[in-house]
Amino acid sequence: MFLYIFPKGAQTACDMGQRILFSNQPRIVAVSTIAGTKECEGIVGRYVETALSDDMFGESTFEKAECKMLSHVIDGAISNAKLMRDQVGMIISGDLLNQIISASFAARDFSVPFLGVYGACSTMAESLALAAMAVDGGYCDNVVAATGSHFASAERQYRYPLELGCTRPPQSQWTVTGAGAALVAREGDGIRIGSATLGKVVDFGITDVNNMGAAMAPAAADTILAHFRATREEPEAYDLIVTGDLGALGSRILKDLTWEKGLDISENHVDCGEIIYNVLEDEFQGGSGAGCSAVVLNSYLHAKMMAGALHRILFVATGALLSTVSSGQGESIPCIAHAVTLER
Amino acid sequence: MFLYIFPKGAQTACDMGQRILFSNQPRIVAVSTIAGTKECEGIVGRYVETALSDDMFGESTFEKAECKMLSHVIDGAISNAKLMRDQVGMIISGDLLNQIISASFAARDFSVPFLGVYGACSTMAESLALAAMAVDGGYCDNVVAATGSHFASAERQYRYPLELGCTRPPQSQWTVTGAGAALVAREGDGIRIGSATLGKVVDFGITDVNNMGAAMAPAAADTILAHFRATREEPEAYDLIVTGDLGALGSRILKDLTWEKGLDISENHVDCGEIIYNVLEDEFQGGSGAGCSAVVLNSYLHAKMMAGALHRILFVATGALLSTVSSGQGESIPCIAHAVTLER
Repeated sequence: MFLYIFPKGAQTACDMGQRILFSNQPRIVAVSTIAGTKECEGIVGRYVETALSDDMFGESTFEKAECKMLSHVIDGAISNAKLMRDQVGMIISGDLLNQIISASFAARDFSVPFLGVYGACSTMAESLALAAMAVDGGYCDNVVAATGSHFASAERQYRYPLELGCTRPPQSQWTVTGAGAALVAREGDGIRIGSATLGKVVDFGITDVNNMGAAMAPAAADTILAHFRATREEPEAYDLIVTGDLGALGSRILKDLTWEKGLDISENHVDCGEIIYNVLEDEFQGGSGAGCSAVVLNSYLHAKMMAGALHRILFVATGALLSTVSSGQGESIPCIAHAVTLER
Repeated sequence: MFLYIFPKGAQTACDMGQRILFSNQPRIVAVSTIAGTKECEGIVGRYVETALSDDMFGESTFEKAECKMLSHVIDGAISNAKLMRDQVGMIISGDLLNQIISASFAARDFSVPFLGVYGACSTMAESLALAAMAVDGGYCDNVVAATGSHFASAERQYRYPLELGCTRPPQSQWTVTGAGAALVAREGDGIRIGSATLGKVVDFGITDVNNMGAAMAPAAADTILAHFRATREEPEAYDLIVTGDLGALGSRILKDLTWEKGLDISENHVDCGEIIYNVLEDEFQGGSGAGCSAVVLNSYLHAKMMAGALHRILFVATGALLSTVSSGQGESIPCIAHAVTLER
């Protein structure tokens, strides 16, 4: 049932302005993913290109392992597209670590122009939107959009080192160890990127750093509502409305928030954080981290779209833009969500 | 004297690929700057729009002051362009703090789509290039590119808290307290952005975190050489070749590195870090930080270009992509530089 309360003629320039259209059909012609042992135990894990048997990936630190994963998938996406590195115009990438060292150090392995971005767990959608813009605008023929995360490096930086053995509260999510990359090209067979709806920073005053789902759900709702206001579509126009990593609780809040505004997405909404792990006790609300939506999009969703099981999806990656310093200074958690429409 | 050793016919696709052209002439129609007390004592300081009498800017923490500065210049650039906030399609911004909290929290004040970027001190050029791409490609009419930094928050995060009173080595630079924003528009009177040469990550193996100039100079040289290879111009085609914040030592290294490759930029090269402060003993090599090139470009250089004293400049902002974690793990400092051509 569609109870859309926004009058159809009442669009503002601002609402329209969030959405950008790609008329030259930039497309994802190749993807590459890697994920850790725990991630590969789930259903999504069967579609991951490289399954790690050791989450250290042969490196001496978690941060170096995260960087190596990102480098691995960037290289994988370029190889899978049967391109040489000098045919790639840009690498657009970011991650969760301070000063996005995983992305910057991974880019050091490639002699390719690099644009660093930071959108926390929304990075996959942000980098995809920018890659589509660069290709659609005619500035590059091939652009790599990539991101990743590592459970152990994220815990150490944002919460407590694993060695302390801290107890996790029930509303917490589990940062995904994994990375994904998409090669966006002007030509070739693949998944078309039709448009992007860029998110605004939304802050509902949540201060619980263990409850990212509740913090990010209002941002996801804001972007999804802006998208449907601009397109005047109904949710049924998409086979799936996929959010980044709200987890089980955040996903329920999102459905409530959109339903309150007259948009019922409950029939075809799914959250990457909810589906990446088998339902076990210790992940609580599911997966999170920039690698979560990157792995799900570039493995499971990509495979389903290429096989014709999914034709059109709205991919909405969400990010919590906090730092330990901002939380320590009593700030709430501002969040953002960017949406990209993908068609096959 | 121009001793360019690259054969003129030997351009590779890769060299060409670093440079993107903006044929629809996106332009900087308004700017806004703010700077701290020390910064406003220099010659550049006379051109700054808002001079702070207190580097805390009325806030309780350095980080909140940095965020408020950034919010202030974003608002200033929009006001100076005589636009309403809902006419702005995107804010593209980043800063030096972990998880770019200054930019994210500043964006919270504006109901405008936000793209977070991280390029360390190269952020002004990265955000300008992306803003030009968004406007030139027809995705937005007005985009704000902004960045800033704060001496005290940067010292606390990257080195030592000021309260410890640590001695600074002679090769160190002084992080600028200041922020700058440019409003890039499709129409209006202003400074045209002709092209951008996007940088690759370059690492010469420098590990001294107090010697950013030496680490960044090879990246600046790489981008400047790529730019002149692609354009086949001579350095005299620009009134100024302005680098981000190499400081006095880094600037000398850059001139050596480009000269070794047959490109003599010594006649018209100047560094933002070298000119922002009066020549005093305690800044050692000059200014640094994302705010350094942002303040110099959007105050002094903008004023000189609008007054007709400078007609064409190559703006090359440089960034050191390290973190305290990467340095602690024994990594060297990868660096990047992005170049933008500005014409009046």
